[in-house]
Amino acid sequence: MMPQARWWNAVIASSRPRTWEQLTTSAGPGTSGGRIFTRLTAVESVVHRPASDRTLRRSMATGPPGSKVLTEDNVFINLRKMEYAVRGPLLIRALEIEKELQKGAKKPFKEVIKANVGDAHAMGQQPITFLRQVLTLTVSPSLLDDPSYPEDVKERAKTILCQCKGGSVGSYSESAGIEIIRKHVAQYIQDRDGIPSDYHNIILSNGASDGIKSFLKLFNEKLDGKPSGVMIPIPQYPLYSATLAEFGLTQIGYYLNEENKWGLDISELDRALNESRRSCNPRVLVVINPGNPTGQVLTRTNIEDVIRFAYKNHLFLLADEVYQDNVYDKDSAFHSFKKVMMEMGEPYCKMELASFMSVSKGYMGECGIRGGYGEIINMDPKVMAILLKSISAMLCPTVLGQVVMDVVVNPPKPNEPSYKLFQKEKEETLRSLAERSQLVVDTLNSIPGFKVNPAMGAMYVFPRIDLPKRAIQAAEKEGQQPDVFYAFKLLESTGICVIPGSGFGQRPGTYHFRTTILPQKEKINTMLENLRQFHIRFLEEYK
Amino acid sequence: MMPQARWWNAVIASSRPRTWEQLTTSAGPGTSGGRIFTRLTAVESVVHRPASDRTLRRSMATGPPGSKVLTEDNVFINLRKMEYAVRGPLLIRALEIEKELQKGAKKPFKEVIKANVGDAHAMGQQPITFLRQVLTLTVSPSLLDDPSYPEDVKERAKTILCQCKGGSVGSYSESAGIEIIRKHVAQYIQDRDGIPSDYHNIILSNGASDGIKSFLKLFNEKLDGKPSGVMIPIPQYPLYSATLAEFGLTQIGYYLNEENKWGLDISELDRALNESRRSCNPRVLVVINPGNPTGQVLTRTNIEDVIRFAYKNHLFLLADEVYQDNVYDKDSAFHSFKKVMMEMGEPYCKMELASFMSVSKGYMGECGIRGGYGEIINMDPKVMAILLKSISAMLCPTVLGQVVMDVVVNPPKPNEPSYKLFQKEKEETLRSLAERSQLVVDTLNSIPGFKVNPAMGAMYVFPRIDLPKRAIQAAEKEGQQPDVFYAFKLLESTGICVIPGSGFGQRPGTYHFRTTILPQKEKINTMLENLRQFHIRFLEEYK
Repeated sequence: MMPQARWWNAVIASSRPRTWEQLTTSAGPGTSGGRIFTRLTAVESVVHRPASDRTLRRSMATGPPGSKVLTEDNVFINLRKMEYAVRGPLLIRALEIEKELQKGAKKPFKEVIKANVGDAHAMGQQPITFLRQVLTLTVSPSLLDDPSYPEDVKERAKTILCQCKGGSVGSYSESAGIEIIRKHVAQYIQDRDGIPSDYHNIILSNGASDGIKSFLKLFNEKLDGKPSGVMIPIPQYPLYSATLAEFGLTQIGYYLNEENKWGLDISELDRALNESRRSCNPRVLVVINPGNPTGQVLTRTNIEDVIRFAYKNHLFLLADEVYQDNVYDKDSAFHSFKKVMMEMGEPYCKMELASFMSVSKGYMGECGIRGGYGEIINMDPKVMAILLKSISAMLCPTVLGQVVMDVVVNPPKPNEPSYKLFQKEKEETLRSLAERSQLVVDTLNSIPGFKVNPAMGAMYVFPRIDLPKRAIQAAEKEGQQPDVFYAFKLLESTGICVIPGSGFGQRPGTYHFRTTILPQKEKINTMLENLRQFHIRFLEEYK
Repeated sequence: MMPQARWWNAVIASSRPRTWEQLTTSAGPGTSGGRIFTRLTAVESVVHRPASDRTLRRSMATGPPGSKVLTEDNVFINLRKMEYAVRGPLLIRALEIEKELQKGAKKPFKEVIKANVGDAHAMGQQPITFLRQVLTLTVSPSLLDDPSYPEDVKERAKTILCQCKGGSVGSYSESAGIEIIRKHVAQYIQDRDGIPSDYHNIILSNGASDGIKSFLKLFNEKLDGKPSGVMIPIPQYPLYSATLAEFGLTQIGYYLNEENKWGLDISELDRALNESRRSCNPRVLVVINPGNPTGQVLTRTNIEDVIRFAYKNHLFLLADEVYQDNVYDKDSAFHSFKKVMMEMGEPYCKMELASFMSVSKGYMGECGIRGGYGEIINMDPKVMAILLKSISAMLCPTVLGQVVMDVVVNPPKPNEPSYKLFQKEKEETLRSLAERSQLVVDTLNSIPGFKVNPAMGAMYVFPRIDLPKRAIQAAEKEGQQPDVFYAFKLLESTGICVIPGSGFGQRPGTYHFRTTILPQKEKINTMLENLRQFHIRFLEEYK
């Protein structure tokens, strides 16, 4: 029932789990050696049961004074079960290797390349000048008189500071965010879609993850004794599987169609939904567009079909649209779910929809600053009030994250002094990402046994790799999934840190990994060449 | 069972709930008019049952296409029940009044004074120069060459930027925070207490609230069929009641002793614990020191007794120490729970303890920036690994909040160029807070029917007010608690926004409110005078 979590704990306990014993070290009562590998592969199953199976749990309500109050046996089991592969054992090992290198350890490589996470600045992408200038003036209002800052920067900073209580970004904002920034977000959406947007529907957050989690929490209710079910793509971004595990919601995985550029097949949505009905009440349909980890950009027709499916099956749509600026394919365009739904007219334009955006992706890449927004439309006003109340105890999202979000939705206009530089930096960043995505796809497709779909958008590619039978057996022997085995070998041999496909989900018997396209050009060339050489050696070793 | 939440929803639905009908508008099935007032007072009961009473819930698993997927009837009931008085109906009404004033509405006052929340900058407190300078240089590294910034500012900024991937605060940090900042936090604690601190035990967070919530989540497990119980003071800071309601943990309230400067009586801890055992497994003891909303500073002897009590009863100690810099009473001093526990020796020094700190309070008041840390000692390493895993899906706390935390724990040293100014600003801020706290206490104690304990620390006073019988009857008639009735009248007549005692909890039949001491001196004088006049008119009206 909790394969990766166990494995994760084992990894924590012993940094390089290679032996059967290590892998079973932290398994609780009821684990028999013979079952461990089967359980390790359970992450690939499509419908996960919610975390209600507590039969493994020892009865340990109280202990004697002096014993630990909180132990692995009485900690919240949903947290023990949850996993987040992007920051899982591969990254932990990568960080260790970095420290070993610092201490002078001899390795066949000089540095660890963290292609595990969409962290653009970490990989050398430069911040957007205008964005950092506005942020600087809100932090140091005394610089508002400094002639070296352009007028549009000053105007943006002043507008925001006027709305901060006491004129300081150090005061709390409303829990949903500063009103003027919410209004700018609404205007941005309206300009993007040509459809009205009401700022009352906008909630700012500490990155999109925070907003998505607050939203999904609303569904954490059993109805007629059954938990709520949330449909998510497989492969998916593991924020979803982690959040569903934490809340005890049922994950209803629907496979994306790898043969058709990771598109959404309605028949597959139907299959997944119907199979899940026995164990849960399906209530939410998550779509990630552009796709993470899969990089597809949905066609308008595909989106319309998905909306009809959600309507027919009474599902709340969650559109994860954080990569809306990251479309590289010339024949593709980003269509927001809201725009399509609205243009389809009644009854679809009345459907409940939540869409999320972030300052961490796009051309900004300001991951560390934690800014995001959600637009939630057609939600019952009483539920909206409950959502606002539920976030109020956390007081407010970081005001500086809100400032950066303001810049993103209210960039320099053509007649403003910062326009030219802003456009140049934005376009150059997006052009370079498009170039690197093409480079990664082309190079990987040239490696024997690799097959990659075109990277139409987002920041990742998700190649399928054919693993030799002997490699699969070797992995099994070490109690690891074959793609995890492969990723660890890659890391130890080359310093390249990618995330195995099993962290995102994949069809049983297929193997993938996710790599970002973010290392700068020279580094990405080296990385791809090292990857190719590693793979050829790997094939040789396990042929 | 959910008095305030109902009331809150009613307030949302109709901004000024004054009539019986309005108050019952959003009550679910099973509510009879005759019971509503009793239920409104239930917030004062000391042991709250966890949010498992779902009998009121209509069966509404699915609806027809076109109906709302998410409604008040099928939303997560714990969120519907939770309340957070600091941002509750009083504040909502205060914000409305502000907008009415902006539109030119005639009121007996010119501005709303938000004494509801500990938001120092909003009330005119100026940011600490050194802090904002370091923040500025991390946002704009090009200014590192600017001769107008002191060398110690540059050194701090460079040290942090060196540890940010790609040299940018826009890259993700580790989920527990940037290692060098965690090390600085550990050094700060070590210097404060004279007791070793290990940075592996430090977790940075988006303000203390975020860290406290992540920690309490670990206990969200039923053992032997009973939920975990968390002991919290009454009055308490409502983050705790809100978090426990959300997680379905049982709130075990222990009354602070108002007659003894809001001290902790061990006999009362015993009473509360014993009464709770039937319905829950008590596992955590929360102590807020200095106290919020009560302003007490615990003596060392009192802390020792509390530690012995926690040991004897096998409780994990949660020390909310965010006001550790805010001690105004000359005869009091801040003693950290960790220091006392360690100095008590075995077996106490082996106890599990979590302590939290924030950049929002103290002399910094940087609420909007969201920085905080928790130090967790003696926790089972496997549980620590689960905690770290559980926060990893949110990627990292805001890096800029981490930067501010770094300044707080690594301030200018006596030989550094910024030392003098930093000390001057810090001392002046704390001196002014001490002065205002004394002013508020003295003035309130001079109003007939007011009784206030000395404000030894923190940022609030929590006066007890005698309300005339006729006022209590009038409140009852409007379906409000008497202190809520009083606070609304105060707001409408004077623009002063305080939080009624029932939002924090108080002994049945007593009435209080919490006001901050944060308005600047001139404003606080006006506020206190208006409050006095209002109260005299109120007594006259209801005599």
